[in-house]
Amino acid sequence: MADRGVTGTVGIIGGGQLARMTHQAAIGLGVDVWVLCPDAEEPAVRAGARHLPGSPDRYEDLVRLAERCDAVTVEHELTPPEHLERLAREGHRVAPGAQAASLGRDKAEARAVLAPHGIPTAPWTMASDAGELEVFGDQVGWPLIVKQPSGGYDGRGVWSVDGPEQARTSFEGAESPLLAEARIAFAHELAVMVVRGSDGETVTYPPFETVQVDGQCHEVFTPATVSDDHEREARRLAVAIAHHVDLVGVMAVELFVSPDGLLLNELAVRPHNSGHLTIEACTTSQFENHLRAVLGLPLGSTDLVAPGAAMVNVVGPDDGHDPFTDLGPALAVPGAHVHSYQKAARPKRKIGHVTATGPTVDEARSTASRAASALTAGVPA
Amino acid sequence: MADRGVTGTVGIIGGGQLARMTHQAAIGLGVDVWVLCPDAEEPAVRAGARHLPGSPDRYEDLVRLAERCDAVTVEHELTPPEHLERLAREGHRVAPGAQAASLGRDKAEARAVLAPHGIPTAPWTMASDAGELEVFGDQVGWPLIVKQPSGGYDGRGVWSVDGPEQARTSFEGAESPLLAEARIAFAHELAVMVVRGSDGETVTYPPFETVQVDGQCHEVFTPATVSDDHEREARRLAVAIAHHVDLVGVMAVELFVSPDGLLLNELAVRPHNSGHLTIEACTTSQFENHLRAVLGLPLGSTDLVAPGAAMVNVVGPDDGHDPFTDLGPALAVPGAHVHSYQKAARPKRKIGHVTATGPTVDEARSTASRAASALTAGVPA
Repeated sequence: MADRGVTGTVGIIGGGQLARMTHQAAIGLGVDVWVLCPDAEEPAVRAGARHLPGSPDRYEDLVRLAERCDAVTVEHELTPPEHLERLAREGHRVAPGAQAASLGRDKAEARAVLAPHGIPTAPWTMASDAGELEVFGDQVGWPLIVKQPSGGYDGRGVWSVDGPEQARTSFEGAESPLLAEARIAFAHELAVMVVRGSDGETVTYPPFETVQVDGQCHEVFTPATVSDDHEREARRLAVAIAHHVDLVGVMAVELFVSPDGLLLNELAVRPHNSGHLTIEACTTSQFENHLRAVLGLPLGSTDLVAPGAAMVNVVGPDDGHDPFTDLGPALAVPGAHVHSYQKAARPKRKIGHVTATGPTVDEARSTASRAASALTAGVPA
Repeated sequence: MADRGVTGTVGIIGGGQLARMTHQAAIGLGVDVWVLCPDAEEPAVRAGARHLPGSPDRYEDLVRLAERCDAVTVEHELTPPEHLERLAREGHRVAPGAQAASLGRDKAEARAVLAPHGIPTAPWTMASDAGELEVFGDQVGWPLIVKQPSGGYDGRGVWSVDGPEQARTSFEGAESPLLAEARIAFAHELAVMVVRGSDGETVTYPPFETVQVDGQCHEVFTPATVSDDHEREARRLAVAIAHHVDLVGVMAVELFVSPDGLLLNELAVRPHNSGHLTIEACTTSQFENHLRAVLGLPLGSTDLVAPGAAMVNVVGPDDGHDPFTDLGPALAVPGAHVHSYQKAARPKRKIGHVTATGPTVDEARSTASRAASALTAGVPA
């Protein structure tokens, strides 16, 4: 043990692809990563992060993680914020803190907490039954977007309600109350990644435009289709939210660009799919900046290193074949960067992504898209 | 086990920083890396590569490695080439092969094998005693550079012999014969990284200029101080050597730029210190391209992603403190990429490096140098 260097040890609650890519970034910094998750086959463990078997919602397991690490962070919303708060109270460094984490966990709380600070959202309400939903729909106009306040992802837990009749069935089998929002006629969706250090220093990445298919993120690219004014405003909103919630770490602020200006859609208080392209596209990736913030180190430059960049998610194909069995056709696309998460290729599950940079955003999008298609096209004969 | 993706498993003989950075690149590709080395505290194991304890020169250990991997490669010259040849004969995929590996291992053999193919070197001879050294020195002119044909690195195993008197002491305690070369009045030193796939496809990186201090690589930058003609010739020589030795994988071809043109200095048949900057400076790093070649996948673009790039090695300071204990001052240098190998900071030992890209090579050199100095400056009070 005398013959080893030390710079820090970070514990991540969760062992998925976000922890995997955080571990990959940690190798450069000489930071050891422990991940708390049940299964040794999870993406981060496959990539060589140290595995602490356990459950993200068991306080005793969180303590075991914290005791072997200099700082604890999260890669998902499965840990009760009160557990994070208790860990911090007992002297462990926890980032993000409970307040920030609970806003990422509960969409209704995020809206309620941020509204007084002038963070604009679509008109919304909490509805406990069909009657309340009808009143709200008649008031703001149909259709509504109805969401489980917490636990949804990739389009799950979010659905459209076209009118009073559909409203009546919305509560069947759903936890209540539900969050209801007026459907916004948005032109584009943006994500602004913001990083805040423990000293209050913030950096923002250029806005990334996100393209959803069936409620699931399909593509991300930058520069986004956004005016300079909206870009400034998007970055300002992200920084304002980061300060309000005393963020330490990275956060994704998802925004609609609507005729009424920018509206907050969702927050993710952790590294996020919309920031994966930062690995190749920016001087410092979201994963390295997250580690820097969590460890109290100076934040890194978020500048783009190319005029354009794009990322396309790779999801498990419907025919069940594994797109990563043969990397050849994708790697033959010049400039394509392939990221496998080493996850089983269940249909529609995010199992990897492809990033490309280029002299224009269109070229980058074309490269990433061709390589992603080469992966998912099918098993060669 | 049913719930895991598979794309390939690579075994690396050796667990140092080259294996560490290869493992880091393998995470993107979804490739599992096993490293064969004695010690669980070696850099690649610290980064999460799977550890197979064993010795690089024990054939039984190599077989154990090969049996769990789709391909076997090396990160140093400690494995007897005949072992690699035997592994290949027994049906394992081994890259580089024995012929290429033996040229990286034996400087005299490299010169002897490549001379008939018109690969230029300084005048050289093998000298078995002081008398032969004197004859050669009188013929080509003093001083001579004398080298152990194999086993030396970072300036060890290489020394200058100024005249006949010093020649007499050169063989004291040294293995003989020794390789003697005329000392070249070179203007610059270059390294050309070349990658060759199993199908004979080759790619070369732009020449990197290397700066040695006390025989040890201190700095690498690109674009190198080299004419277009010399750049073309350097790339041509590297490709020619790659084909001659039936290379599969990456190789560093170190060249002198002398008044007589380009002269071959050394070969390293593996990823190499002079190619570390490819992680940030090029579309595809030397580590990813090595993996691609070893696994029979298409090679990636070697284009620079910035006008200039530079890398400075971080070696253990003479006062014995660990430069990576506090990353803060180095990470505060905008654009600096820190790479720790998590090695004990023994004086003069390579324990990490810093890379920067920039709008000019001078800016990149300045950034990398400032960040490296911030690391090694000393322990803050």
